[in-house]
Amino acid sequence: MARIGFIGAGAMGAPMIGHLLGAGHELVVHTRRREAAQAVVDQGARWAATPAAAAREADFVCTNVTATADVEKVLFGEGGVAGAANPGTVVIDFSTISAVATREFAERLARKGIEMLDCPVSGGSMGAQAATLSIIVGGKAEVLERARPLLETLGKTITHIGGHGAGQVVKACNQVVQVVNIQGIAEAMLFAQANGVDPKKMLVALQAGMAGSRMLDMMGPKMAGRDFAAGIEARLHQKDFGLVVSMTQALGLAMPATALVSQQLNALVGKGWGRDDTSSLLRVLEGANPAANDPGNA
Amino acid sequence: MARIGFIGAGAMGAPMIGHLLGAGHELVVHTRRREAAQAVVDQGARWAATPAAAAREADFVCTNVTATADVEKVLFGEGGVAGAANPGTVVIDFSTISAVATREFAERLARKGIEMLDCPVSGGSMGAQAATLSIIVGGKAEVLERARPLLETLGKTITHIGGHGAGQVVKACNQVVQVVNIQGIAEAMLFAQANGVDPKKMLVALQAGMAGSRMLDMMGPKMAGRDFAAGIEARLHQKDFGLVVSMTQALGLAMPATALVSQQLNALVGKGWGRDDTSSLLRVLEGANPAANDPGNA
Repeated sequence: MARIGFIGAGAMGAPMIGHLLGAGHELVVHTRRREAAQAVVDQGARWAATPAAAAREADFVCTNVTATADVEKVLFGEGGVAGAANPGTVVIDFSTISAVATREFAERLARKGIEMLDCPVSGGSMGAQAATLSIIVGGKAEVLERARPLLETLGKTITHIGGHGAGQVVKACNQVVQVVNIQGIAEAMLFAQANGVDPKKMLVALQAGMAGSRMLDMMGPKMAGRDFAAGIEARLHQKDFGLVVSMTQALGLAMPATALVSQQLNALVGKGWGRDDTSSLLRVLEGANPAANDPGNA
Repeated sequence: MARIGFIGAGAMGAPMIGHLLGAGHELVVHTRRREAAQAVVDQGARWAATPAAAAREADFVCTNVTATADVEKVLFGEGGVAGAANPGTVVIDFSTISAVATREFAERLARKGIEMLDCPVSGGSMGAQAATLSIIVGGKAEVLERARPLLETLGKTITHIGGHGAGQVVKACNQVVQVVNIQGIAEAMLFAQANGVDPKKMLVALQAGMAGSRMLDMMGPKMAGRDFAAGIEARLHQKDFGLVVSMTQALGLAMPATALVSQQLNALVGKGWGRDDTSSLLRVLEGANPAANDPGNA
């Protein structure tokens, strides 16, 4: 059994920590507010006041925080992982962050003999709870082999893509496909409403045909039933699209639908729906199209 | 058993005619060129030189042609269905055409006592061959009940949406969801390539997660394998998006991703790839991004 430091115990981190405890590992968890770790402490984890305290003596340090800057802070900030972890420790970053920054972080850690894997996941909090996540891995193959038993506790598909950052590149691809699809579904909903067609009947026909997708199964009924509770918090998709768009700028790459959906997500967050579900992209369209507006959506 | 006139015997029509013959119906088929009907004549259908000749004495007249103008011509042009069909005949239009024009055609037919159903389908030529089409129906419920045994010979899901044109509205929704999804998949492919990531590995990770869809399963391997043979001819999607965009103009409705994808489809056809697969949307992106271009795509 391994000694694992875990930074972050949110909607994704908490169930992941639970599975690792259940598999018999020793967990030291850092969260900014101690209360945020209470549930996993009740399950047997120990709380640490700093990332460094969670990383000291650990075999693996898992990070599951929100943004690139958050990962940088817990790794290299005051009381960070890099100042405390032993050489040979493996940092496993489950966060969705910049591929470019990931390569830089891996280099900085390597100078201290610390290994890193970027392991962003797809499957949402439901996937984390059911331990059915798709785990997308960038980094060295031999380091992945050391981490594999731990990852197999958390997900059902583990795909090694390539070197440092490659996992984050593919996670970005995943978000592009998923949210561009949600935008298309929202536009179809709008079109059905504007033509006086019952969106629920539209959904049944579409799910039976070539337009079927996991997002249609998940987001379609939410939109048709006007249930905009998260689900997936739209602010996280907005953050991810910001990342992709900034990478396309650096790469000199034009991804027109991605850029458009990024703007719609900005409008969504601007409307105050960032903690609601990404199905709220329908509400953004309705805001721009008063005639098609649902009366219940004032 | 019914007497059925069938106008059009293309990639969709020919297998549908085969299933109807197999079920024991009597088929009179009109195609512009007699040779185009040879395969179904060999199976037992009779060829007719005009739509009128196919419609005379028929219980049902099926139309499966390309565009709104084609349907108008076979129904109301010289030697058209409307001048020959008996009152009580049911016209079943399997084509994907304008919902507004459909309502007008239904009205004009009603003045002669001829019924109409709009029955666009989803599932492609594979679905037509396997008789697993999703058939989306607009028109009167009692007329659908008369046509139902015939439709059940051709598809596995029959969804009655509403009055005349409602089937076409939902078919438009289907195309929007499907092709906006293809555009998102193409942009993810481009992003993977530009970041030096193997698109095939990217696909495996995405298919296991929340980005999964029928289009990802179908188009992803085609794009990754650089196989742009149709499949679904992109020119048909371009036509459908032209229809949707013109309807949004009439409705005063803004569907930004649909408009963007319509432009990409225009570029695709302009490049001369209209009879290739819609996975060619990747090639349109590559044309605008020479750095990401595959060397095999000159």
